[in-house]
Amino acid sequence: MADVRNELNRSAVMEYRDFANKLADAAGTISAAAFHAGFQVARKADRSFVTSADLAVEQRLRELIAQAYPEHGIIGEEQPPVHPEAPFQWILDPIDGTEDFAHGIVTFGTIVALHYRNTPIVGVLDHPLLGVRVAGAFGLGTFHNGTRVQLSDLAPEYIDSSERIMISARANFTRYGDHGQIFDTITRAHPNHRIYRTCYAHVLVIVGGADAMFDYGNRLWDVAASQILVEEAGGKYVEVPIATIGEKHVYGAIFGKARLVERLAAYI
Amino acid sequence: MADVRNELNRSAVMEYRDFANKLADAAGTISAAAFHAGFQVARKADRSFVTSADLAVEQRLRELIAQAYPEHGIIGEEQPPVHPEAPFQWILDPIDGTEDFAHGIVTFGTIVALHYRNTPIVGVLDHPLLGVRVAGAFGLGTFHNGTRVQLSDLAPEYIDSSERIMISARANFTRYGDHGQIFDTITRAHPNHRIYRTCYAHVLVIVGGADAMFDYGNRLWDVAASQILVEEAGGKYVEVPIATIGEKHVYGAIFGKARLVERLAAYI
Repeated sequence: MADVRNELNRSAVMEYRDFANKLADAAGTISAAAFHAGFQVARKADRSFVTSADLAVEQRLRELIAQAYPEHGIIGEEQPPVHPEAPFQWILDPIDGTEDFAHGIVTFGTIVALHYRNTPIVGVLDHPLLGVRVAGAFGLGTFHNGTRVQLSDLAPEYIDSSERIMISARANFTRYGDHGQIFDTITRAHPNHRIYRTCYAHVLVIVGGADAMFDYGNRLWDVAASQILVEEAGGKYVEVPIATIGEKHVYGAIFGKARLVERLAAYI
Repeated sequence: MADVRNELNRSAVMEYRDFANKLADAAGTISAAAFHAGFQVARKADRSFVTSADLAVEQRLRELIAQAYPEHGIIGEEQPPVHPEAPFQWILDPIDGTEDFAHGIVTFGTIVALHYRNTPIVGVLDHPLLGVRVAGAFGLGTFHNGTRVQLSDLAPEYIDSSERIMISARANFTRYGDHGQIFDTITRAHPNHRIYRTCYAHVLVIVGGADAMFDYGNRLWDVAASQILVEEAGGKYVEVPIATIGEKHVYGAIFGKARLVERLAAYI
């Protein structure tokens, strides 16, 4: 099957990538200021957190997209979709890790993705308070603060339980089904793990700070940027089907260094 | 039993606290520069990581202590003890989270503690790249970037599995004994957990960004600063005896909001 992304020319992809970086700039300006100056916190119907900063960031990004690409679709965590039928869809998590943000934890970040006909074109993960950004686009590579990322694979003999795994919290494995056993199995077999619960975990895998991530029980905006970033960095990305509850699709993803991703995918 | 710390006058404690902050300043200058400029990485006999930056930071802190307090003892991760019989002991982890530091992860930090007759007097946890520091001293309170910290307790009805727990990786529960079951039990009962594996997890509990930490399988320098910081912030700290292997003492600690600490301590 032909890759639909070859329908796009390189200069268009570059333009979208540069625009995604501008969206991340705008997001970071708002969220960093709110982090220091203060914001309101509320709980949504599902008990997850939302702050006035999440709402302000998403509102601003939607305005910028509507100005630049009025025909493009927008999917964001905090507002209903715009142009759901459009081939281009911007997918936004204004503040990923809102619970952590609300508790003063600096590893929160913004996720911006552009998909074309359900295929990822551009991804940006940005941590304004860490000064860390990864940005990538189809055919153009993945960059960490401006430096090209090229992931090496793990040699088979290094998959010996010292490998460095990022994993979601156990709550993510039980929220949409009784899958806690997967968490238990993986934490036993790969005991050198970290749980950051925000896109900083994704960033670390993409830049090689960890070897792979087992991400479970998330929504589209949590994972929308990572596939293109991982693949353009030379890693492997496997989507994990979890559940569809009404109109709500729940995602999982295993990604990072290829051999370890294959090992982890065998647990599903 | 009288608290030996009452033998010290307030101005002396203030002086030690200010000096500990200067040590953290010196450490951060070296480690932040090395993080950006590069450093050598090696493995110690126990396969743990050490970098040229760990060694350089510890060397510099030892020089500063020897100049200011030549009669004080020093216990650090990378060199043998100095004056082990002295009543005052400076306890240093030049870079906590060396494995993360070596992999470009910004949440590493420096730990500085002063104990007097085996009782904690001063603690500082510093994250140079995050711009986050907590510092505290006996009778003088705990401060987060200069602002006094006062932890509230969790109401009993909020210990409902949504509470926010920091925990060590499962590898820490099996390194010095077959205690993986404790990790499994806690991650099931408290599924909203994070694993940062560096002193940033301690910082987050001390400032209220998480509710409690279950820290397991560490060495003295990993935990030496946290008791005074937690107690001066109004929280509770429980030391967990784990193992003594030859001359090597292995530590655990449960600390944070009092009711949750009591709940977690029941798992031991």
